[in-house]
Order: sequence, then C-alpha cells, then structure tokens
Amino acid sequence: MVEMLPSGSTIGILGGGQLGRMLSVAAARLGFRTHIYEPAAMPPAGDVAHYVTSAPYEDEAALGAFAEAVDVVTYEFENVPTSALDLIEARRPIRPNRRALAISQDRIAEKDFLSSIGLTTAPYRAVSDMPSLDAAIAAIGTPAILKTTRLGYDGKGQARLMSPGDAAPALGAMNGAEAVLEGFVAFSHEVSVIAARGLDGSVACFDPGENVHRDGILRTTTVPARLSPNQRSDAILIAARILNALNYVGVLGVELFVTPAGLIVNEIAPRVHNSGHWTQNGCAVDQFEQHIRAIAGWPLGDGARHADVVMENLIGDDILRVPDLAKQADTALHLYGKGAPRPGRKMGHVNRVTRR
Amino acid sequence: MVEMLPSGSTIGILGGGQLGRMLSVAAARLGFRTHIYEPAAMPPAGDVAHYVTSAPYEDEAALGAFAEAVDVVTYEFENVPTSALDLIEARRPIRPNRRALAISQDRIAEKDFLSSIGLTTAPYRAVSDMPSLDAAIAAIGTPAILKTTRLGYDGKGQARLMSPGDAAPALGAMNGAEAVLEGFVAFSHEVSVIAARGLDGSVACFDPGENVHRDGILRTTTVPARLSPNQRSDAILIAARILNALNYVGVLGVELFVTPAGLIVNEIAPRVHNSGHWTQNGCAVDQFEQHIRAIAGWPLGDGARHADVVMENLIGDDILRVPDLAKQADTALHLYGKGAPRPGRKMGHVNRVTRR
Repeated sequence: MVEMLPSGSTIGILGGGQLGRMLSVAAARLGFRTHIYEPAAMPPAGDVAHYVTSAPYEDEAALGAFAEAVDVVTYEFENVPTSALDLIEARRPIRPNRRALAISQDRIAEKDFLSSIGLTTAPYRAVSDMPSLDAAIAAIGTPAILKTTRLGYDGKGQARLMSPGDAAPALGAMNGAEAVLEGFVAFSHEVSVIAARGLDGSVACFDPGENVHRDGILRTTTVPARLSPNQRSDAILIAARILNALNYVGVLGVELFVTPAGLIVNEIAPRVHNSGHWTQNGCAVDQFEQHIRAIAGWPLGDGARHADVVMENLIGDDILRVPDLAKQADTALHLYGKGAPRPGRKMGHVNRVTRR
Repeated sequence: MVEMLPSGSTIGILGGGQLGRMLSVAAARLGFRTHIYEPAAMPPAGDVAHYVTSAPYEDEAALGAFAEAVDVVTYEFENVPTSALDLIEARRPIRPNRRALAISQDRIAEKDFLSSIGLTTAPYRAVSDMPSLDAAIAAIGTPAILKTTRLGYDGKGQARLMSPGDAAPALGAMNGAEAVLEGFVAFSHEVSVIAARGLDGSVACFDPGENVHRDGILRTTTVPARLSPNQRSDAILIAARILNALNYVGVLGVELFVTPAGLIVNEIAPRVHNSGHWTQNGCAVDQFEQHIRAIAGWPLGDGARHADVVMENLIGDDILRVPDLAKQADTALHLYGKGAPRPGRKMGHVNRVTRR
C-alpha cells in the first residue's frame, strides 16, 4: 500500500515554463502547493505557483533550501544538470527517477535502452570522428541525420547527410561533440502515447494522438490518431514496456513512427508532453493531474478519452489570433502568460473539441 | 467594439477563498495574472495567484496600492465594505458594478429590484419593530421566516415563525437589526442559473442545475435539472432580464424555486456561484473563465453543456473520502488546499460525469 502525499504538501518543480505552469494548476486542483525552481526571471509557472526560487542550477544554497522546502521534486524539462539533481536527491525523492532522466538526456543511451527491451528504433551508430562516421554511413547508408548525442541549451546540433559526400561538413557542424548517426525511417505519420505509471506500479495510457510538426516544432495533435486497433494496442504496450523497464513514476511521452513494418520509437520524454495537451479538454483527468497523482502516490485518474480533440499550438504571432479564437465554439484557450511573441516561441495552445 | 484587456494584464480579486482560487486558475488559462486582496492569512487563492495583499479592508494605503497594481477589479464575495469599494473605484473599474453589489447586500433592496422588473419573489415585508412585524404577519401569514436585511459576517440572523405567537422571540433574535419577513414558498425543488453578460452586452447562460441543500449548505448540484422545456426557457429569461436590468458585467448566480405556479426568484449572487462548479467538467468554458472573459472585455465563451454532471461539495470530514474518490472513474476532484477540516467548512468538491 502506497502512502498518498497529503493535500497541502508542497511539490517542487524544476523549470518554470508552460509545462510547469500547467503542472502547478493541476497540483492546486488536488490541494497541493507548488514551488518552482527556475533560473530565468519571471517564469510563466510563477503566476500560479505558491513560491518561486529564481536561481541558477549551480547555486547550491538555493537548491538546498528548495529541496528542504518541498516534499517531492519533479521536473518539466530533462536538461537539469547532474550536480543539481545529486544535491536534491540527497534530501528529497525525485520523480520520475534519475535513470529515466539520464537515458533521455543521451540519444545513444536512449536507443541502447529501447533496443535492450526489444523495441525498434531507427538504425543508429555512435560517431565521434571521421572514421566512425564513415563506418556508420557504411552500415546505415544515406540519407541519414547526424545529431549531437546530448541536447544542449545552445542549439539543436543536427545535420542531414543526403549522400556520403556530406560527411565532412556534417561532422564539422557537431563542433567536436559526441554524435549519433540515425538512418531515415520511411514513416507514414507520427503518433505519441502519453503514458503514466503510479508509485504502486499501476499503468494508464491516454489514447494515442497523431502529431504534425512544422519547422521542427509540434503544430497539431489530433485524437483519435489514424491507427488500426492492433497498432493502437502496440503503441500502448510499447509505452507500458518502457515505463515498467524504467520502474518509472510519472507521465512519459513516447513518440512513435508509424510504418508498414510496425511502430518505431522515435524518442521518449520523461515528463508531460506537448502532444498530451489535448487531454485537458478530452479527459476527466488530464496529463498534468495524472503526473501529479503519480509522483504524489495517488491513484492514477480516469484518463478515458471522451471527445475527439485537435490541439493546435499557438507559436509566435499565432497569439494574435486569440481575439478570433476566443469567439469560436467548442474551443478552449490555454495561454501561457508569456511576454512579447517571438518566432518559434510557444505562446499557448487551443484545444478544439470536434466530436463528443 | 469593446477593447479586450490584453493577456499579461493583472486582474485584482477581492477575497481569497476557493472562488478566488478558481478564478485565478481561469485567469491564468487566458494569460492573465491575478492579485488577491484578502484580510485573512494564507488564503486558498494565494497558492495560484501572482501576488497576494494581506490587509484589512480598512487599510487605505494597501487598498490604494492594490488598485494601482491591477487593471480591473472583481470580487468573489459580496460583503466588501463600501468605503473600500469607493477607494478602489476611484482608480480602477469594478466589475460587476456597484449597483449589483449594493442590491445583493440588502435583502429588501434585492426583492424590490426583482419586483420592479416584473419577477416573482416570496412575499416579503420590511420589519423594524413589533408593530411592523405584526403588520407583516397580517399581510403574509405564517409560517414565515424573519431574516436580517443585511448579511453580516457574524451569523445568519434568521428565525422561523410557525405561528404569530413566535413574533416576539423572532424579533429578539434580530438584535435590533433591520429585518425582512418572508413568506414560505411551497416549491418542489430549487434550481439555479449561472448567467453571464459581457462588456459588449451579450448574454450567455449555462444550463440550469438542480440544487440540494442540507443544514443550509449546498450539497449537490445536478445537471440537467428537472425542468420542462418551458421552465428551462423561463429560468434563462429571468436571469437575462436581471443581467440586462443591472447593466451587469460578469457571472451572476440566480437561485429559483420551482413551483406549480411558475419560477420564483429566491436570491441572486453577483459572482461565480457554488452551484456552477459543475461547468468545470461539463463545458468547454467554465463559469470561472466566463467571468474572467466578461470582466476583461473578451467574447463570452461557449458554455454549451456537453455532459451530465453531479457536483458534490466536500464539507468538513468529507475530505477524508478523497483517497476513495480519487480512484473512481469519471470523477474529477477539485480541492481547495485549506488546512484542517472543520464542520461546515467547504474543503473541495467533486464533479461526477454521469453521461456524455
């Protein structure tokens, strides 16, 4: 029997962006307070949090005080420095656990892990120099994509190789960082599963959504996704296998490519996920509350989908459409309270209920 | 054309209880910040507000600073002292307006107003002394109920008269306060309409809910209410008439008695209302967001009901049922983050979706 963290307890959240903001609201709905830790000034989550610590991840005193002030710690993004996590974990539980975080911070570790539990990924090879890149091209072929192994704060670090002749400039674009060459996957569309695992080991998955990206940014997620019943079951089983293998607690996003040969795991995110925002208007318990329930040791909620929904991100100047969107029927706005729009900046999203 | 208050603006809310809390969350969803003004320490709304002023309503400096810090002011309860409102209104708009507030603070003014616009209330007479009480009993008969005209902070001030012989003790229970004698209404059940009027004069009503009280406290609201199509139309027209007559901006709760002779207005509340909490899980836009939209000059949202819902208040020790409630399907918890339960204290509510 798992003990439920009592209402009135404080949940610490590393990161104060829109995911932290929506996690805070969900936590409040269950009677929790939130304490946001965020290096940047005026974080969006600060508007709805009980307390905000504004300090860098290198500030050990601030991190220590944050940990002491909260009952459990979670995060809204996966690039928290290891040293900060060490310091916090000595004082309070971090959920989801460190292993999930470490794996998702490293593309090779992630693909190795996924392969080790019998899941299919794009073909990949580690690349550290020209000989290893040549060997990777020989194994995988082109077209392929070279990516830095770790996601930095400072850019995407990706380069496409249309032919072996692109190897040298692609390797140059990595700036000496460890990299991975990934083969292209011929997929018809991408779906994602937002899955949750409770502290008691129970698993619940939301219905898969179908994602459309533009310029590398998610634009829309549509439920139901175009999937056969078998594909839908496969998608959910894949997510559950990942959750169980990681002894995971919380919500996990799993991106999957749909191919004629089956589902291929693109990547996983150890947190609430943009492609799960539709749950706010399609389920009794949304992904944010599900995450809070999981990390607080509460029973997972009823995530049954009761509506067809199209989630559309409002990016940059899309925010100027709000006066028009506000008038539309069956349209729920979710704005993040960010300042001026900038190109590529996620300013909000809208959930359109298309059928109940 | 009404100008929309831009996202990022700050909405001032007088009162920091659960209604202020849920208004804050709704405001955040539209990108607004909230600033709570609340005399009591650690208000529930403070957990999800951008800023909290903890000061009494007599603190002119604090009230002035609050008004200067916000763009528009609203309230979650109607007993804000007039002096505080005067000070604020000199600086910022108060929505809903002062007239709605004044009327709802005074039972006689409220009934006079309702009668003046052609609506039916319980029979009533003003009572200030024994001769006027005797005259009121002669006009209305018994059983009847004597109530103080104004709702104080310090008790309900109500006394039942089963026969004319109860007059003297009932008058004594008023402690010299102005009072009103109200005749009993033979009603089959009570319903309420949560209605909204925008800054542009547009009106939108949520579907009426059916209320059950116990010990003077709302226990459940069920939608749909037991109403004939004509009664439903009447209920909505009554609410719209009140809104328009008051040139109202915001959400208004209207409690109605259902009788064989038609609908009788019990009372009105110039704010979001406990009997409208079901909208959180039954509509694309709930009563809290509708209120924020109205006072911010935004278009009213789509309040069409898309589910059958039973809202149940969690009062006092009901909060101990949360571990069990958290496991139930189609059940959405809304907890207020209050401290220890006390008898009669509203700790949260649960919305059960019974049909979609």
